[in-house]
Amino acid sequence: MIIKVPSHIPGFDHIADGGLPLGRTTMVSGTAGSAKTILAAQFLAEGIRKAHEPGVFVTFEETAEDLRRNMLGFGWDIAAWEEAGLWAFVDASPEPTWEPVVAGDYDLGALLARIEHATQRVRAQRLAMDSLGAALTRFGEASMLRREMLRIITAFKRLGLTTLLTTERRNEYGRIARCGVEEFVADNVIILRNVLEGEKRRRTLEILKFRGTPHHKGEYPLTIINGEGIVVIPLSAIELKQRSSDVR
Amino acid sequence: MIIKVPSHIPGFDHIADGGLPLGRTTMVSGTAGSAKTILAAQFLAEGIRKAHEPGVFVTFEETAEDLRRNMLGFGWDIAAWEEAGLWAFVDASPEPTWEPVVAGDYDLGALLARIEHATQRVRAQRLAMDSLGAALTRFGEASMLRREMLRIITAFKRLGLTTLLTTERRNEYGRIARCGVEEFVADNVIILRNVLEGEKRRRTLEILKFRGTPHHKGEYPLTIINGEGIVVIPLSAIELKQRSSDVR
Amino acid sequence: MIIKVPSHIPGFDHIADGGLPLGRTTMVSGTAGSAKTILAAQFLAEGIRKAHEPGVFVTFEETAEDLRRNMLGFGWDIAAWEEAGLWAFVDASPEPTWEPVVAGDYDLGALLARIEHATQRVRAQRLAMDSLGAALTRFGEASMLRREMLRIITAFKRLGLTTLLTTERRNEYGRIARCGVEEFVADNVIILRNVLEGEKRRRTLEILKFRGTPHHKGEYPLTIINGEGIVVIPLSAIELKQRSSDVR
Amino acid sequence: MIIKVPSHIPGFDHIADGGLPLGRTTMVSGTAGSAKTILAAQFLAEGIRKAHEPGVFVTFEETAEDLRRNMLGFGWDIAAWEEAGLWAFVDASPEPTWEPVVAGDYDLGALLARIEHATQRVRAQRLAMDSLGAALTRFGEASMLRREMLRIITAFKRLGLTTLLTTERRNEYGRIARCGVEEFVADNVIILRNVLEGEKRRRTLEILKFRGTPHHKGEYPLTIINGEGIVVIPLSAIELKQRSSDVR
Amino acid sequence: MIIKVPSHIPGFDHIADGGLPLGRTTMVSGTAGSAKTILAAQFLAEGIRKAHEPGVFVTFEETAEDLRRNMLGFGWDIAAWEEAGLWAFVDASPEPTWEPVVAGDYDLGALLARIEHATQRVRAQRLAMDSLGAALTRFGEASMLRREMLRIITAFKRLGLTTLLTTERRNEYGRIARCGVEEFVADNVIILRNVLEGEKRRRTLEILKFRGTPHHKGEYPLTIINGEGIVVIPLSAIELKQRSSDVR
Amino acid sequence: MIIKVPSHIPGFDHIADGGLPLGRTTMVSGTAGSAKTILAAQFLAEGIRKAHEPGVFVTFEETAEDLRRNMLGFGWDIAAWEEAGLWAFVDASPEPTWEPVVAGDYDLGALLARIEHATQRVRAQRLAMDSLGAALTRFGEASMLRREMLRIITAFKRLGLTTLLTTERRNEYGRIARCGVEEFVADNVIILRNVLEGEKRRRTLEILKFRGTPHHKGEYPLTIINGEGIVVIPLSAIELKQRSSDVR
Ligand SMILES: Nc1ncnc2c1ncn2[C@@H]1O[C@H](COP(=O)(O)OP(=O)(O)OP(=O)(O)O)[C@@H](O)[C@H]1O
Ligand SMILES: Nc1ncnc2c1ncn2[C@@H]1O[C@H](COP(=O)(O)OP(=O)(O)OP(=O)(O)O)[C@@H](O)[C@H]1O
Ligand SMILES: Nc1ncnc2c1ncn2[C@@H]1O[C@H](COP(=O)(O)OP(=O)(O)OP(=O)(O)O)[C@@H](O)[C@H]1O
Ligand SMILES: Nc1ncnc2c1ncn2[C@@H]1O[C@H](COP(=O)(O)OP(=O)(O)OP(=O)(O)O)[C@@H](O)[C@H]1O
Ligand SMILES: Nc1ncnc2c1ncn2[C@@H]1O[C@H](COP(=O)(O)OP(=O)(O)OP(=O)(O)O)[C@@H](O)[C@H]1O
Ligand SMILES: Nc1ncnc2c1ncn2[C@@H]1O[C@H](COP(=O)(O)OP(=O)(O)OP(=O)(O)O)[C@@H](O)[C@H]1O
Ligand SMILES: [Mg+2]
Ligand SMILES: [Mg+2]
Ligand SMILES: [Mg+2]
Ligand SMILES: [Mg+2]
Ligand SMILES: [Mg+2]
Ligand SMILES: [Mg+2]
Repeated sequence: MIIKVPSHIPGFDHIADGGLPLGRTTMVSGTAGSAKTILAAQFLAEGIRKAHEPGVFVTFEETAEDLRRNMLGFGWDIAAWEEAGLWAFVDASPEPTWEPVVAGDYDLGALLARIEHATQRVRAQRLAMDSLGAALTRFGEASMLRREMLRIITAFKRLGLTTLLTTERRNEYGRIARCGVEEFVADNVIILRNVLEGEKRRRTLEILKFRGTPHHKGEYPLTIINGEGIVVIPLSAIELKQRSSDVR
Repeated sequence: MIIKVPSHIPGFDHIADGGLPLGRTTMVSGTAGSAKTILAAQFLAEGIRKAHEPGVFVTFEETAEDLRRNMLGFGWDIAAWEEAGLWAFVDASPEPTWEPVVAGDYDLGALLARIEHATQRVRAQRLAMDSLGAALTRFGEASMLRREMLRIITAFKRLGLTTLLTTERRNEYGRIARCGVEEFVADNVIILRNVLEGEKRRRTLEILKFRGTPHHKGEYPLTIINGEGIVVIPLSAIELKQRSSDVR
Repeated sequence: MIIKVPSHIPGFDHIADGGLPLGRTTMVSGTAGSAKTILAAQFLAEGIRKAHEPGVFVTFEETAEDLRRNMLGFGWDIAAWEEAGLWAFVDASPEPTWEPVVAGDYDLGALLARIEHATQRVRAQRLAMDSLGAALTRFGEASMLRREMLRIITAFKRLGLTTLLTTERRNEYGRIARCGVEEFVADNVIILRNVLEGEKRRRTLEILKFRGTPHHKGEYPLTIINGEGIVVIPLSAIELKQRSSDVR
Repeated sequence: MIIKVPSHIPGFDHIADGGLPLGRTTMVSGTAGSAKTILAAQFLAEGIRKAHEPGVFVTFEETAEDLRRNMLGFGWDIAAWEEAGLWAFVDASPEPTWEPVVAGDYDLGALLARIEHATQRVRAQRLAMDSLGAALTRFGEASMLRREMLRIITAFKRLGLTTLLTTERRNEYGRIARCGVEEFVADNVIILRNVLEGEKRRRTLEILKFRGTPHHKGEYPLTIINGEGIVVIPLSAIELKQRSSDVR
Repeated sequence: MIIKVPSHIPGFDHIADGGLPLGRTTMVSGTAGSAKTILAAQFLAEGIRKAHEPGVFVTFEETAEDLRRNMLGFGWDIAAWEEAGLWAFVDASPEPTWEPVVAGDYDLGALLARIEHATQRVRAQRLAMDSLGAALTRFGEASMLRREMLRIITAFKRLGLTTLLTTERRNEYGRIARCGVEEFVADNVIILRNVLEGEKRRRTLEILKFRGTPHHKGEYPLTIINGEGIVVIPLSAIELKQRSSDVR
Repeated sequence: MIIKVPSHIPGFDHIADGGLPLGRTTMVSGTAGSAKTILAAQFLAEGIRKAHEPGVFVTFEETAEDLRRNMLGFGWDIAAWEEAGLWAFVDASPEPTWEPVVAGDYDLGALLARIEHATQRVRAQRLAMDSLGAALTRFGEASMLRREMLRIITAFKRLGLTTLLTTERRNEYGRIARCGVEEFVADNVIILRNVLEGEKRRRTLEILKFRGTPHHKGEYPLTIINGEGIVVIPLSAIELKQRSSDVR
């Protein structure tokens, strides 16, 4: 069987039939501003608050400093968790020096070693990596995406880490991710949408794929609440309309 | 005439007018999470349980270990069948080492030899290969797809194996497979769809092509039942609606 | 005037205003499984059965052996016709050896010579070549398609052979063939469609172009009957509906 | 002012407000089988029959021999006109030899000289060149299309020939011609369409552009009548429907 | 403020809130035959007739000789204006020699010098350049379009010339111009459309952008009247319909 | 928390829940003429008039001289503000010399140094950079867009400047910006649209993304008023219609 790790993200575990597959990587794909980073951070935050599971957040563009300030809006005091050894950042965002950071400065192997070290330091059980696209622009080779992504996922599986890996996509209903291979390499795929209809935006979350375990199908409404974070509404949009409590 | 091998996958043999063409390769194309791997595994599982036909499963990304755990959810104890010499894995998934696995490490010829050896070991009659895309990224040359795929199919035909070969596609109604040539090389083509309509997902199976033998045309509803596996509903969607027993 | 050769394919000659233009090549383009090979084989079969016109079938991927078995389903005993010197195969499908078949092993000239030889052997009047795409992947240069296709057609014209040449296309209503030049080089073009509408498939045949001679315009329903072969229904879909005898 | 040459193609001169601009090139663009070659041949045929204006037909793929037979269907005895020195072919179609015809065998300059010579021989006033695409695949450089097309048009203008130059396009409502520059280089552009609607084909002719002179706008129905040739119906489709004499 | 130069093109100045921005370049983009050259020529013609403002017309494909004859249809006697030193042509159209005109024969700098000289000769205040696409195919480098276009515009601005620069586009509602950068470089952009709806053509003019000054938004009907030239109808299509005087 | 800087652009701060995130870069993406430059200039103008916050405007194609004249139409006397040391231009627009400006004349580092110097001179708190596309065509490498854009944003963040950075896009509802990566690199994204519907244009502003802070979702009507500048209407289009005061 596939053991499920309750994420404790409100509404998500119901749709995931229990939570995220233990020790496996789940790809979170979405357009710009579709709440990929919030979902990844909230996965670690809820891990700490509700399951005493330490986490590691690997970031490639948003600096650790920015993330700390951005997530404060949801009441998550990441700095405190770092103090308490419950949260570790691997901040692979570029140095604010003027010299151009040449692609491939660090190779992917060195990066994976840094991550392993951080996970050991806080005895992490949860990992978030944001984003694959940003990583491969500066580490490894974007062109060898299928191979490099497989390497990353295989490494995290060896470490037994339940992982969220964010990927970028350019439209709401088309390719799952940028290169059209990522969704085949990942064991599990979540799609975050931010759909523009009649000048209004509608956020949804869908579990496209969980290898080896059931999950609810289709898109579920999602909302981001200031001071709280993401809440997934476990009623399908249609059922929701019938209840006419438009929470979108 | 073309002899048909009953697959014993619930509902499929009706649509296939008896089953899969004996000793030939059937391509199973579908988007991410459209049940390609489950269909391939179930073909071997039902072969063992209902026809005493041993099988070989060749995997290029999902490890044998992951497949064993993923398929347990349907009650298929692959480890036991391996014990009993009824099921053999050819696990060509990459080593979980840190060094980059260079494409083309093994050439296609060596891989085909390994497969032939495994089929002889269990006197296999059924073969599953998952997936052509993953294989050609690491063996042979993706660019010479038409030639390499023909080589693979010709080799399995020589061995007299009834084979399912999975291929990847990026949209539900467009190209049959990634490169737009695969569907012309294969003798038989099955399309698995996972259609998003009004935020709901609808799974279907279609037999696009059986060279030399009749089959039912068009899409048939398909459902994946925990503890059971794939069930194809041999009524067209329309007939199904009339029966208003929405099994989707 | 352009002399027409009755094909004796049920319903086709009516739409073709008599049959196929004598001594010219007609391109038959269609998606995977749209009955290109059956139409080509049936052209030779009916030639033998109804007009004592021997034929040559040139195949590049489906082996002669497979074709014999595939066409048996329609009651065409090709092996017997070969015995009687009425049917000759030019089997250019790849050897089932393990070594990679390097593209361009044989050049196009040698292939055309082999074909000429076969036509002389059975004093062929009909020729089928299946498919141009498969041929140019292994002979000549796909990139020089316009020139190579013109060479092939000019050669068959010199031999006075009434020819069906199959080409591949990737969608039902878009480009006529793969490279968007084939349909301009051919004297005559037939399009075979296998349209997916509301989960149902609908097969049609259209004569897009006959240089120098009239033909019926638009799509006509087509069905493949086990034990018989292709039957073209010479009523347009609309007229057909009025007759509400849904033969599709 | 721009002097107009009556083409004497039934119905066309009405739409062209008198005929084709004298001494200029008019591009005739259309999909495969949209009657480009018939229109070009009919322009020369009507020139001879109704205006004693000799013509030259330059062909790059369809051989002169094929054209003579194809046009007989409309009652045009081209061979006789050749005898009478009223019609000259420049047959640049490839030799039916087996050796590959290397692109660029003859350069464009030599071809233009051949054409000038033919026009002088019959004191031609009308010229047809079929097709630009076929020409540039074997003469000049397709990549330098804008420059080569301008060279051709400038040369014919210098000779004072009223010319029809056919170009190829791949869809009925999209790019005017293959490379998306031809329609800007030509002084005048005619579009021949063969529209597939509800399984029926509908032929139309449109004058997209006449530099310096008026013409009727939009699509007009066109039909090809065996034994007669092209007839353009000078009523717009809508007016036509009102007259419910469906001539399509 | 931005001073506006009344163009005196009937109906245009109303939509332009006074006319074209003085001393700046306005890009006129449109499909083939959408009246780009007529608008450019009419800008100079009305300048001469209604504002005693001499003009220079730079042409790259249509020869000066052709333009004189083409514009006579509107009653503009360009030859007379040339005589009177009110109109100067810079005819950069290719020589009607047979030798191929190699791209980049003249560099862009030499061309700009020729233009400056012509403007001084007639003390020009208005300039028309038709077309950017044709120019860059033979001068400068089309690939460095953004830089070359900026150079041209900056040069004309230095000369204080109010300029119309035509660019080519391939569809009525999509990219503004060929390379998708032109519209960002130009200070002002006019789009000429020739829309095919239900087999009818409808011409419109739109001022997409005037940097620094107001203008009417959206598409306005446009018609080309023999013997007159372009007339822009300053009522929106909808208002126009209400007035049911269909001038299109 | 994320501190918000009131922009004082009428209607904008309501939608932005207070204003722009302090010290971060907000990308303003839009098609040609969608008011990107006006929004950027108005941000600095309102900063000076309503918050005594000096600003720096970096321009790459529109010269400082043109911008001064273009913005006068809104009553913003930029020259006066420059006198008073409240506004500084970094005019990186090309020299009006004839020699071609070779791409990459200045490297990105030198440019960033020039900008830092200007911000120190006027003790700027606001920065506008118009546009990223124009900049990378002449500085740095457009191909390394992700890296170069990150460098620019990181540099401005180090300087603590609240920045508007304009980017170009080619269609109203498709890619957010030219290369499909910009919107992932920026902390905040505003989309300006100029939608053509039924021949009418409709301007809207949308805050697609603010990292770490709430904002109103969806498109809001926007209008540009001569003598005033941009006014964002804080009612959604639908609410607006109900109020039937069509301000568009
Ligand atoms: N405190 C908050 N309260 C409400 N909504 C917020 C808050 N903070 C952020 N948001 C919303 O979340 C969005 C950003 O979410 P997030 O950064 O996770 O997106 P993302 O998918 O990671 O974007 P990108 O691909 O650009 O990294 C913001 O655009 C905003 O709409
Ligand atoms: N035990 C189960 N019960 C119900 N549904 C399941 C179960 N296990 C898997 N599934 C469903 O099957 C889907 C995965 O099927 P499968 O792995 O065959 O897809 P696939 O087409 O091979 O995907 P990929 O292309 O990524 O390899 C899951 O997304 C889930 O929806
Ligand atoms: N005996 C039969 N009875 C009924 N239908 C048949 C029979 N044999 C084949 N078919 C139908 O014909 C289809 C295959 O036809 P055919 O091989 O001519 O297609 P094709 O266009 O040549 O395909 P490809 O492009 O892959 O070569 C099968 O998919 C099946 O639907
Ligand atoms: N004698 C005839 N009577 C009626 N219709 C005919 C006759 N001859 C040809 N046709 C029609 O004209 C069509 C071919 O016209 P034509 O050869 O001019 O097309 P085309 O545009 O030149 O095609 P291509 O681009 O392939 O050269 C045929 O497909 C047929 O429909
Ligand atoms: N004298 C006239 N009377 C009426 N309409 C005319 C007259 N002369 C030209 N036209 C119309 O103007 C059109 C050509 O206009 P123009 O040459 O300006 O187009 P264009 O946009 O420059 O085309 P291209 O991109 O091919 O250069 C002709 O197609 C015709 O419809
Ligand atoms: N004084 C004014 N009064 C009213 N509208 C104006 C005024 N000045 C400019 N505009 C409008 O603003 C538009 C230009 O805005 P702006 O220059 O900001 O566009 P932009 O997005 O920067 O364009 P580009 O991408 O080409 O630089 C003009 O097309 C015009 O419609
Ligand atoms: Mg993010
Ligand atoms: Mg799988
Ligand atoms: Mg076939
Ligand atoms: Mg033709
Ligand atoms: Mg023009
Ligand atoms: Mg601007």
